[in-house]
Amino acid sequence: MKIAIIYYSATGTNHQMAKWAAEAAKSNGDHDVRFRKLKETAPMEAIESNDAWKKHYQETQDVEIVVLDDLDWADAIIFSIPTRYGNLPSQLQAFFDTTGGLWSKGKLVNKVVSGMTSAQNPHGGQETTLLTLYKSMFHWGAIVAAPGYTSEELFKTGGNPYGFSSDGGVDDLNEQSKTSITHQVKRTISIAESIKGGMSKA
Amino acid sequence: MKIAIIYYSATGTNHQMAKWAAEAAKSNGDHDVRFRKLKETAPMEAIESNDAWKKHYQETQDVEIVVLDDLDWADAIIFSIPTRYGNLPSQLQAFFDTTGGLWSKGKLVNKVVSGMTSAQNPHGGQETTLLTLYKSMFHWGAIVAAPGYTSEELFKTGGNPYGFSSDGGVDDLNEQSKTSITHQVKRTISIAESIKGGMSKA
Amino acid sequence: MKIAIIYYSATGTNHQMAKWAAEAAKSNGDHDVRFRKLKETAPMEAIESNDAWKKHYQETQDVEIVVLDDLDWADAIIFSIPTRYGNLPSQLQAFFDTTGGLWSKGKLVNKVVSGMTSAQNPHGGQETTLLTLYKSMFHWGAIVAAPGYTSEELFKTGGNPYGFSSDGGVDDLNEQSKTSITHQVKRTISIAESIKGGMSKA
Amino acid sequence: MKIAIIYYSATGTNHQMAKWAAEAAKSNGDHDVRFRKLKETAPMEAIESNDAWKKHYQETQDVEIVVLDDLDWADAIIFSIPTRYGNLPSQLQAFFDTTGGLWSKGKLVNKVVSGMTSAQNPHGGQETTLLTLYKSMFHWGAIVAAPGYTSEELFKTGGNPYGFSSDGGVDDLNEQSKTSITHQVKRTISIAESIKGGMSKA
Repeated sequence: MKIAIIYYSATGTNHQMAKWAAEAAKSNGDHDVRFRKLKETAPMEAIESNDAWKKHYQETQDVEIVVLDDLDWADAIIFSIPTRYGNLPSQLQAFFDTTGGLWSKGKLVNKVVSGMTSAQNPHGGQETTLLTLYKSMFHWGAIVAAPGYTSEELFKTGGNPYGFSSDGGVDDLNEQSKTSITHQVKRTISIAESIKGGMSKA
Repeated sequence: MKIAIIYYSATGTNHQMAKWAAEAAKSNGDHDVRFRKLKETAPMEAIESNDAWKKHYQETQDVEIVVLDDLDWADAIIFSIPTRYGNLPSQLQAFFDTTGGLWSKGKLVNKVVSGMTSAQNPHGGQETTLLTLYKSMFHWGAIVAAPGYTSEELFKTGGNPYGFSSDGGVDDLNEQSKTSITHQVKRTISIAESIKGGMSKA
Repeated sequence: MKIAIIYYSATGTNHQMAKWAAEAAKSNGDHDVRFRKLKETAPMEAIESNDAWKKHYQETQDVEIVVLDDLDWADAIIFSIPTRYGNLPSQLQAFFDTTGGLWSKGKLVNKVVSGMTSAQNPHGGQETTLLTLYKSMFHWGAIVAAPGYTSEELFKTGGNPYGFSSDGGVDDLNEQSKTSITHQVKRTISIAESIKGGMSKA
Repeated sequence: MKIAIIYYSATGTNHQMAKWAAEAAKSNGDHDVRFRKLKETAPMEAIESNDAWKKHYQETQDVEIVVLDDLDWADAIIFSIPTRYGNLPSQLQAFFDTTGGLWSKGKLVNKVVSGMTSAQNPHGGQETTLLTLYKSMFHWGAIVAAPGYTSEELFKTGGNPYGFSSDGGVDDLNEQSKTSITHQVKRTISIAESIKGGMSKA
C-alpha cells in the first residue's frame, strides 16, 4: 500500500501522533509511507510570538510539505490536525482548496481516509473536527476508515469512534495513545487493501 | 420567563442534570418552570432487563410527560438527553416528529433553546449529540443558547461549548457539574429575556 | 452479497426509492436482497388524519418489518428515510436504539452502508439527514459508501455527494432518480464485495 | 446596530449576496454597516488561470479587507461564503484562525451571526457549509440567527433553514434571492437589537 500521513502541528502534538501513525504503517507490512506536513500559512510574527510554536516550526523544517501528487499517489491517507473551533485548521483547508483539479478528474475517488485530531478541551472539538474532515471526504468519493469501537483499546483513550483524539499537549500523549493510533492505522490499511484489491478505481 | 425543562433518562443521569437545571431556573428569578420527561417508548421488557433502568423508571413515574403545549407555552427550553450513537434518543425524536402542527403555524419560532447530554465515552457523542439537537432547532426558527466559553467554570467540566455533557453515570455528577449547568441555565434565561423583550414573536 | 434495503416512508417517496434500490441490487449480480420497512411507531390517529399516509400504510402492510437479524445478516445496508428537521425519523432512531446488543458484540462492524433521503425543500435536510445517519454508522464501525461525484449522472439529480435525495413527493421521482439510485447501489455493492473479500470481520 | 458583512467570493456570487445584505442592513434602520471581503490567499497564478475569478478579483480591489477590529466592533455579523467540499473556504478559516486573542478575552461572546452560502450543486454543500460555520460560532459564544422558516418567501429560494444559499452563479441570483436575503438580514438585526438591548456583554 501507498500511505500518506499528512499533518499540521503548531506545537508538536499532531506531529507526534502522525509520527506514530507512520511508524505503525511501516511496521504493519511492506508499505510505502510518505510523511508530510501541511504548509504553514500563519505569518512568521504569529509563530515567533509563541515559543513552543517557534521551536516546533524550526525543528520540523526538514519535513516535506505535502503536494497534490501525494494525494494522487496514495491508496490510504491519514490526516492528523488540531481543531479550530470545531473545524479544520486553515492550513488543511487551504490545501483542500487546491484539489479541484484532482477532484474533477475523479483522482480522489476510493482513497481510504482516516483522521486524528486534538483539542485543548475534552469536549471542545474532539468529535466535530473529524466529522468536518469526513464530510469533505464524502465529496471526494473517498472511503472513510473510522475506528468505531473495533478494539477494546480505544475505550482507554476516550472512546472516540471517529478517530484518535488528544485533549492535551504533546506531553500528554503516552503509550496508550500510541496503541490506539496503531490500531487505527492498521484498520485503515486493511480497509485500503480491501478496497484496492476489490475495486477498479472509477 | 416560562421555562420548560425536558429530559429523557434511562438510568438517572439526565434526570439529575435536568433537576439541577430546574433548580437553577427557579432560583434565578421569578420564573415559571415546567419539569417534564419524554414519554418512554422502549418496550417494558427492555426496561425490566436492566435493573438501573427499571428502578429509575419506577422512581420517576410521577414526573409529567411532556406535551406539545409545553413547547408552545415556553419562552426557553432546556433539553437534557443521552446520546444514541451521536444522535438523539428516539424518545426525543418521536416527540419532535409530532411538532409539525406547531412548526407550520410558526409557534416554535424564537424559542430559546439550550441542550445538555451524556455519553459513556469522553469522546463518544458529547459534542455531536448537541449539534444534532441544534440543527433541528434551526429548522424550528428557534434561537440556540449554547454556553460557548462564557465562564471559566465550563473549562472544569470538559469545556463543551455546545452545552454541559457528562461522560459518566449519575454518580459521577458533582458540584462542578451543577455549577456548569447553573451557568448554562442562567445564560439561557438571559438570552430568552432579551429575545422576549426585544422581538415580536413572528 | 447479502443486501438489506431498509426504509421508512409515510406517503411513498422513500418506499419507491427503496424499491428501485432493491431492483438495482437484484439486477446487479447474484445477491440476496431483503426489502424491509421500519416499524411504524406513529399513532394510528396521525396516520388516519392524512389520506396519503393512510393509503400508503395500508398498501404496504405486506412488507416485512426490519428486525435485528437483518442487520446481523447483511453485508451491505441501504437506508432510505425522509428528513425530520434535518435528523432521522424516530422510526429509524427507535430501531437504532435497539441495536446495543449487536453493537457491543461487534456485529455491526464493517457493514457497508449507504443512505438516501427526501425533504420537502431543496435545502431543507437533503444533506444533513444523511450526515446524521453516517455519523451513527461510524459508531457502529460500519463503512460508509457515499456516492460522492463518482458518476456524471449524479449531477442531474442535485449532485448530493452523501447519497440520492429527493425534494419532491413520490410523483416527482423519475427515470433520472432511478439512474442515480442504481449507480449508488452498484457502488455500495462493489465496496461491500471489496470489504467482504478483503477483511476478516472483526 | 453595528453590522459587519463579511464575504469571500471568487467569481462574484457571494459578493452580490453580500451587497444585497449590506443594502438590506442600511435600509432597515439607522445602522453602521461595514462591508468587508476576506483576504484572498490563493496564489495569483490560480486566480489568473480563471477569467471570471481574475475579473472579479480586479473589480473588487477597492473593497476593504476584514480585520479583527471588525469582529470586535460589530453587534451583528453576516457571513457570505461559498462551500468548499461542504466546509468553509480557507480564506474564512484563515481569518478565524487569527481570532484566538479576541476569543480568549470573551470579545466574540453574544455577537449575533448569520450565514449565507453557495454551491454549484443543489445538494452539494448548501446546508452543511452553514452548519460548519455555526458550529464555530458556538465556540465563540455567539448567537446564531438562522432564518428557519420564518417567512413564506424562504420557501421560494429552496427553503434553507440555516441561511440563504445559491446553487448557481452570480447570474442565477434574482429578485427572489434578494427578498430572502433581505428577510434574513432583518431578522438578524432584530435578534441583535434584542440581544444588545437585553444582555450585558459578558
